[in-house]
Amino acid sequence: MTSVSTIDEGAAHATTVAAKRSERGRPRSGVSERPDLSAAEQILDAAARLFAEKGYAATSTRSIAELVGIRQASLYYHFSSKEQMLRTLLLRTVEPSLRVAERLSAEPGDTAARLYALILFDTRQLFEAPHNVGALYYLPETRGGQFDDFRHKRDRLRAAYAGLVAESIEPALASQLVPVADRLAELVFATVESVIALRADRQSDDTDADATAVVIGEGCLRMLGHSAGLDVLAHRGELLLDRIDVPEQSGAGHSGTTTATVSPART
Amino acid sequence: MTSVSTIDEGAAHATTVAAKRSERGRPRSGVSERPDLSAAEQILDAAARLFAEKGYAATSTRSIAELVGIRQASLYYHFSSKEQMLRTLLLRTVEPSLRVAERLSAEPGDTAARLYALILFDTRQLFEAPHNVGALYYLPETRGGQFDDFRHKRDRLRAAYAGLVAESIEPALASQLVPVADRLAELVFATVESVIALRADRQSDDTDADATAVVIGEGCLRMLGHSAGLDVLAHRGELLLDRIDVPEQSGAGHSGTTTATVSPART
Repeated sequence: MTSVSTIDEGAAHATTVAAKRSERGRPRSGVSERPDLSAAEQILDAAARLFAEKGYAATSTRSIAELVGIRQASLYYHFSSKEQMLRTLLLRTVEPSLRVAERLSAEPGDTAARLYALILFDTRQLFEAPHNVGALYYLPETRGGQFDDFRHKRDRLRAAYAGLVAESIEPALASQLVPVADRLAELVFATVESVIALRADRQSDDTDADATAVVIGEGCLRMLGHSAGLDVLAHRGELLLDRIDVPEQSGAGHSGTTTATVSPART
Repeated sequence: MTSVSTIDEGAAHATTVAAKRSERGRPRSGVSERPDLSAAEQILDAAARLFAEKGYAATSTRSIAELVGIRQASLYYHFSSKEQMLRTLLLRTVEPSLRVAERLSAEPGDTAARLYALILFDTRQLFEAPHNVGALYYLPETRGGQFDDFRHKRDRLRAAYAGLVAESIEPALASQLVPVADRLAELVFATVESVIALRADRQSDDTDADATAVVIGEGCLRMLGHSAGLDVLAHRGELLLDRIDVPEQSGAGHSGTTTATVSPART
């Protein structure tokens, strides 16, 4: 299994700096949709919303600043560009899950239970990411070099899945040709990310992330040949997830204490 | 199960008309990427490619005309707008599968085998759609009223899946709460459409649509609780698909005899 190394520690510091700076510049000219958030977080939330509603290309930094109720110059105090906002939003959809994958790899116990724990965490956070940010994965714009760090981390997450899947396939299925295992790993990853499509189709702020996560987690285990004792396996996975020190679920978007790289544009 | 009614017969005629008209206007100023296609089909292929590579918003009808090697005015002879091209491309990703779902509903035999047949057909055609057109499902632009017919047909396809899934769940699973069945139906549909993400991630013109389709089809049946006798079930599904008069697989993009609504812009 590909190893999942520790994510930069510098991010936490940068976030604190951004949070402190966000106190400046008030009072603002408009009325924010999310007065509970820091300025940097309000900007990200507004950007996510406009990207999802109008499209990335059609969203200007001016329109983001207007939605937050700040001047465009204030926006550039926190983010150097629209790309930087998108990169931050995308990173937040993979970094917490990468961290969980890393911690799970150090845990003892059944690999299938660890896979289940990862699926549970990952589907929940994709479900809770603001404004279904994952839908932006498919934008041609995110294939540019400025999104290499996101693509790289998502590749590492996929590799973590592949390692867990390879060891979780039931012997009866595993006896089939090796290429099937690769395809199954790919399919489990895609099935987890299909939460993005489910959210888009429901077109509502559905809050039943937990129920959906369980159906996807158990569905993936059945895909890998598990049937008898699935309840026990799933229960063990949930206990595992409770036991490890999971980063805040809200890392997907709404907390000032997240791990994502909200760094000031000018340092 | 929601009924799947017959798709407009007028489309075939419109296609023939468009194909005939496409012979006019030559010689063209540029060199087409797909000289084997009719003019209308070349325009669609170029549009799909540019939408996928540059994004929908960033693609102008002028750049599409340039890629085909025709004047912009000639393009408007076949399509009234960029929206009409996108609508045509999107419709082609669902119409053939809707037709197959309809024909399968008239076939006798195991519901699970029919579900497998539908998954096999649908995944293959999503895999073969030009330039991974399905990735455009997630564009905010496709939520506009001009795409209602596409959304409506995709909803009907989802309903056809839901009907087959409801009757295909193994009794042991079916004894669980009813909401799980609904979520499983939703998940099977999303898993089939995850072919779009698989294609995007492989970033290659992968031609192993068949192998991927089988892994997805069998994976979905296992998700629904089938394990013993899966081979037999899958084999029956393939026979079913062979037996019904399946519309051309290339209906997803590359044939002049497709069923999609390529209608002239001006009639």
